[in-house]
Amino acid sequence: MSKATTPFHGVIPPVLTPFNSDGTLDTDSLRKQVERLIEAGVDGLFALGSSAEVAFLTREVRRKALETIIDQNAGRLPVVAGVIDMTTPRVLQHVEDAKALGADALVATAPFYVRTHLTEIEDHFRAIHDAAPELELFAYNLPVSVHVVLDIPMLMRLAADGVLKGVKDSGGNDGYTRALVAARRDADLAEFVVLTGSEMTVDMAYLAGCDGVVPGLGNVDPYAYVELNDLCTDGKWKEAVALQERINKLMAVAFVGDSGRMGGSAAGLGGFKSALHHLGVFTTPLMSPTHVPLNDEEHAKVASIVDTYAHGV
Amino acid sequence: MSKATTPFHGVIPPVLTPFNSDGTLDTDSLRKQVERLIEAGVDGLFALGSSAEVAFLTREVRRKALETIIDQNAGRLPVVAGVIDMTTPRVLQHVEDAKALGADALVATAPFYVRTHLTEIEDHFRAIHDAAPELELFAYNLPVSVHVVLDIPMLMRLAADGVLKGVKDSGGNDGYTRALVAARRDADLAEFVVLTGSEMTVDMAYLAGCDGVVPGLGNVDPYAYVELNDLCTDGKWKEAVALQERINKLMAVAFVGDSGRMGGSAAGLGGFKSALHHLGVFTTPLMSPTHVPLNDEEHAKVASIVDTYAHGV
Amino acid sequence: MSKATTPFHGVIPPVLTPFNSDGTLDTDSLRKQVERLIEAGVDGLFALGSSAEVAFLTREVRRKALETIIDQNAGRLPVVAGVIDMTTPRVLQHVEDAKALGADALVATAPFYVRTHLTEIEDHFRAIHDAAPELELFAYNLPVSVHVVLDIPMLMRLAADGVLKGVKDSGGNDGYTRALVAARRDADLAEFVVLTGSEMTVDMAYLAGCDGVVPGLGNVDPYAYVELNDLCTDGKWKEAVALQERINKLMAVAFVGDSGRMGGSAAGLGGFKSALHHLGVFTTPLMSPTHVPLNDEEHAKVASIVDTYAHGV
Amino acid sequence: MSKATTPFHGVIPPVLTPFNSDGTLDTDSLRKQVERLIEAGVDGLFALGSSAEVAFLTREVRRKALETIIDQNAGRLPVVAGVIDMTTPRVLQHVEDAKALGADALVATAPFYVRTHLTEIEDHFRAIHDAAPELELFAYNLPVSVHVVLDIPMLMRLAADGVLKGVKDSGGNDGYTRALVAARRDADLAEFVVLTGSEMTVDMAYLAGCDGVVPGLGNVDPYAYVELNDLCTDGKWKEAVALQERINKLMAVAFVGDSGRMGGSAAGLGGFKSALHHLGVFTTPLMSPTHVPLNDEEHAKVASIVDTYAHGV
Repeated sequence: MSKATTPFHGVIPPVLTPFNSDGTLDTDSLRKQVERLIEAGVDGLFALGSSAEVAFLTREVRRKALETIIDQNAGRLPVVAGVIDMTTPRVLQHVEDAKALGADALVATAPFYVRTHLTEIEDHFRAIHDAAPELELFAYNLPVSVHVVLDIPMLMRLAADGVLKGVKDSGGNDGYTRALVAARRDADLAEFVVLTGSEMTVDMAYLAGCDGVVPGLGNVDPYAYVELNDLCTDGKWKEAVALQERINKLMAVAFVGDSGRMGGSAAGLGGFKSALHHLGVFTTPLMSPTHVPLNDEEHAKVASIVDTYAHGV
Repeated sequence: MSKATTPFHGVIPPVLTPFNSDGTLDTDSLRKQVERLIEAGVDGLFALGSSAEVAFLTREVRRKALETIIDQNAGRLPVVAGVIDMTTPRVLQHVEDAKALGADALVATAPFYVRTHLTEIEDHFRAIHDAAPELELFAYNLPVSVHVVLDIPMLMRLAADGVLKGVKDSGGNDGYTRALVAARRDADLAEFVVLTGSEMTVDMAYLAGCDGVVPGLGNVDPYAYVELNDLCTDGKWKEAVALQERINKLMAVAFVGDSGRMGGSAAGLGGFKSALHHLGVFTTPLMSPTHVPLNDEEHAKVASIVDTYAHGV
Repeated sequence: MSKATTPFHGVIPPVLTPFNSDGTLDTDSLRKQVERLIEAGVDGLFALGSSAEVAFLTREVRRKALETIIDQNAGRLPVVAGVIDMTTPRVLQHVEDAKALGADALVATAPFYVRTHLTEIEDHFRAIHDAAPELELFAYNLPVSVHVVLDIPMLMRLAADGVLKGVKDSGGNDGYTRALVAARRDADLAEFVVLTGSEMTVDMAYLAGCDGVVPGLGNVDPYAYVELNDLCTDGKWKEAVALQERINKLMAVAFVGDSGRMGGSAAGLGGFKSALHHLGVFTTPLMSPTHVPLNDEEHAKVASIVDTYAHGV
Repeated sequence: MSKATTPFHGVIPPVLTPFNSDGTLDTDSLRKQVERLIEAGVDGLFALGSSAEVAFLTREVRRKALETIIDQNAGRLPVVAGVIDMTTPRVLQHVEDAKALGADALVATAPFYVRTHLTEIEDHFRAIHDAAPELELFAYNLPVSVHVVLDIPMLMRLAADGVLKGVKDSGGNDGYTRALVAARRDADLAEFVVLTGSEMTVDMAYLAGCDGVVPGLGNVDPYAYVELNDLCTDGKWKEAVALQERINKLMAVAFVGDSGRMGGSAAGLGGFKSALHHLGVFTTPLMSPTHVPLNDEEHAKVASIVDTYAHGV
């Protein structure tokens, strides 16, 4: 499948943000990780997603991270930039940055913190598109963070009007995924891209008709997701399920951190970063403040899971 | 009661952010409103709160608004600055700005968008205090936006350690307010300030032991809240209830906007700004994008409510 | 204030359901408790409420408990019977029982377990009233159990149509309580009774205009609530707050049960029943299966709290 | 696949409850529907599920419905009986009835209305099993009604102890379904049955490893689900997806009812019953009070959908 004709399909990992010991952005590790992902054969790079700790990054650090990814990528893959912030005016600042730095597409959530209305959410996506009509725009369904489920008829209206290229769905609701694909078909919007953000049910999502995946765990084992994408695309479902189940054993790294001691973000990102540190890609497993770090025992457990289940490492 | 000895008690309105027709900050109207609030006898000014549309303001506009308020206030009242953002590193940028501009105190919520743990929330407040130990810090309990209720034992720990000066409680739960006051007494932390953000139940909150109120509606009728504070402080409960009930008739401006057409923020802020436009304080009733504006009929209804129920206008 | 002219005002405790060691209804202890409440001067008896473990009682046990309370009361006080069940047809069976046994009034929640619409909730209350038009009907606002907040305009329609006599509000939201009282006034429905179910904020609720309280803790210390009701009714707010604060120390019995080991119902009811066992009113502190019981250490702690803070025991 | 060796796999429709015009149970229509389902080749019958309006049925009507189904079935298929009620003591009454009437298995939710703890939920299932150890027991995961997600490690403990035969999962969360299947494998509990209650994503659920489906829509078109089960079991995923997508067009009957006028239960059940009335199986489309009925236009729309998409009717 040619990337030129099917942009934004396949595996588009949300690139993690490595830090130096002093908490500053570790651009060398970030470049290494970009290189590693491209070598593994992924189809695009998603910069500044939730897995990149975008919620913790200042505007300046976001710019530096995006610039580094785009520079290292050097046009090889499409780069999608998260422009995630509370409301339209603040998102538009990130849109401006993404445009200036040369991103190929944008990902935005609905507004959060504020109590909105469907019309206000729809206008939000229209305003983002108007500010950068030359960039493809993806809506990000992330109820766990945004506390809103994106309305499917709204998404179809925005797609029909050329505002949205697609949706990244991290809702974890199989009926919603199904309904998205059905709505796309009913509206005759075959070009509308549906990406799943749920790394443990990629086979199920592809069976329902998803076009790609944005797997945080793809930072640890991009090869596995590239292979899973191929199996699903080729209709080799039995093999796909077997691979998905092996991948899910690796996903255990995200649950090593003790939930009695830290939040879900800390455990999940902490596990991914610990794995990349163990693999020698990141110089530290540090997360943004005030994430609780994994302890030594937890790091050892992550290393053991990686050594057992990661693919081609 | 002397302001010098009881700072951060009484009426501390969250100053609204007026806009010019082109959407830029209307500093003249903002100065007029600051002057109007001071003349009415309020006890402090809360800049960059939720009612100020802080979630919609870029860092640059936040700075300009805070600078204008501080400049116009000219040291007459304590100025509390909201430093509301998704996570610690981003909040710390606003802390830096507030410090540089001369705020007297800060208000921060727990992190949002991310899945945190009690320890991470506690560390968040500690990090803010460490960045500006000379400024008083208030925790902002706002579950409707932040989707977390601040843990009372945590607040008491932070108060005992000198991290927190108080809490602004907009939880709308009378049992929580009661429990806050009881915890303060049990911990022998009489200096810990409990402010309510619920403008329709101020009398109830004061009866339970609250020290002050941060009323969005106080932008429209600061005189009423100053009088209500005095009545409550003097134990004139019958008169306080009667005044609260009259104030609540005025609060109807926040529910004029049709909830079938706009979100709760648009209706509430739209009503307040429409009222201030009607009163000649603001040159426009504009809100940040993508709030749905009130229509002409709704503006007329707001004007009629203001003319009937606002105090001393 | 004469009970005849103001029925359903004042203190109406939800009578607990005592059990024998074999788990059967302990009618002797139930009679003792009814006698004790009447002696303390309460204004009514609420049988088969949430505090009576109504959710755990079979139809047969409910009948037996209600019959015992009505028999022991012997017409001295109005008896309100809970008819709490999942949907209309099942509630109507309890209505039939309550009617046959001679209750004076009914308390019903909205349907639960099912996904309803406002119209269906309204029709539910109308159907209950139609089945027993001679009994007063109270709507029970209990979002923690029913997962619906009763719509205030609906309540006013039902009141205006003679369907509802009042509401028992256990929502814990001071703004809702306030809005109920305001809606009653605006609709000129002075006879509509607003009772609070929040035993720790009775003073606040009365200040806002509530007419009575249904305090689970009133089983332990009915004298304190009778006195609190008098202080609030007489406008002695300072004394009311002081008494409420002492009562809240006693309420600690409901939080002795370790939340890591049991649910909120078990801790709360377990604390009340442990207190009544300690006071010699109940022969056992048993709760319905599968509540986790308090352990010996917790029972001792409850006893100590009761000895310190209960009134006139 | 022999039913004897793999009981409780495959298609187990939740049999709807038909009513006569006077609202009484229509046993003739119920017998017709049982016959129709058996003829279509389903693998079991689930009596007294949510789709049977179990929440609305009195104990007497539940018994009559279950008795009718068991009598008509005459031992041809396993009959699973819902014993759904608020708490253990009330559920145990239904267990007694199901046992007396000859059911083969039971389905129970966690307690609802009450605030429970994991231990109390686990003890609830143990108590049910102890009351009828000879009947297989299924746990019903239904967060939309019960407001609790069943804990997977608890389910595995109960399975290992012989308390649970399986789970009916109507959670709508693909990650949860996946995790259930993985936990079963990790615990070496191959006999533990995982059934999905989500009729629009059966193919996805089977891909993940589910063993069967409990489809409300299977009342309307049992043939389609029997065929879908076969396709999935045979690994014919492409055909399975195509059939699922056609089935989902039929599922539109559940969304014909105007959500502005009725609740989700009324629309869903109303659509199913309207379809069965149109098909001549039920003599009326009546639902329990206080469901809002579909109107004539909506009935016509349902009929048209059925005529277009139902299989072999």
